[in-house]
Amino acid sequence: MRARDIAEPYPVVGFGTPAVEAARLIARDRLPGLVVTDADGTPRAVLPASEVVRFMVPDYVQDDPALAGVLGDVPIQQIRAELEDATVADLLSSPTPELALLHGDDTVVELAALMARLRSPLCAVVDNGMVLGVVTAARLLELVCGDDL
Amino acid sequence: MRARDIAEPYPVVGFGTPAVEAARLIARDRLPGLVVTDADGTPRAVLPASEVVRFMVPDYVQDDPALAGVLGDVPIQQIRAELEDATVADLLSSPTPELALLHGDDTVVELAALMARLRSPLCAVVDNGMVLGVVTAARLLELVCGDDL
Repeated sequence: MRARDIAEPYPVVGFGTPAVEAARLIARDRLPGLVVTDADGTPRAVLPASEVVRFMVPDYVQDDPALAGVLGDVPIQQIRAELEDATVADLLSSPTPELALLHGDDTVVELAALMARLRSPLCAVVDNGMVLGVVTAARLLELVCGDDL
Repeated sequence: MRARDIAEPYPVVGFGTPAVEAARLIARDRLPGLVVTDADGTPRAVLPASEVVRFMVPDYVQDDPALAGVLGDVPIQQIRAELEDATVADLLSSPTPELALLHGDDTVVELAALMARLRSPLCAVVDNGMVLGVVTAARLLELVCGDDL
């Protein structure tokens, strides 16, 4: 069994994709993150869900987390406004984490080793520079431990 | 809206839970990880899905990832065998990452700020030392951006 047999379809986002759209894709499929590709489909980065959350937090709260406690209830619309003018490029932290990238004929052990080394919740599987799909840690565990799920 | 209103039920695991059982829970619900509690229900750690994957990789491959490529196809049963005698305590890396822990009356901004600071894919929500549920990054994004999902 090889990476291409395990990969699942995933929603494509680019650097220019609106942040709110990326957030909705993560929410809809309960994804641990998204793979970000160039305009030509070449995978370039993983955007973890927690990075999108980070962008919703005002800078002054990120600098001093104790301030979050004194703000009281902030309307959801106001939290969402932080994301509304942003794109995926804005959400990516700098430097971006190393992209977990495998080839279609890589084995399950190579997949697990890479995911473990990068502590990444997902790997992109590529052939000829194009993304075939992704493998999440949960999918890999299903494959290995799921006989009697 | 407070953390207790957003928290979702989650499967409980203890330090003695078999690793294969923890892996199946992650796989079944496509979770980014699990909250690990003491016997009395006190939350103690987050077990990210990628840590479970790490345990499936033989030590000599973790030490030298290039070896994964020369192993060829390893039967799924053999990969699973790495997990079979292990418990959740064995899977947790040392030192364990800081547990993302909120109280039921913490606000959405406090939740987002904590998740962002710890780069954690999930937070446990507790009242009186007992876990009410968890909030994943995907759930938080659904709440904030999901009006027209």
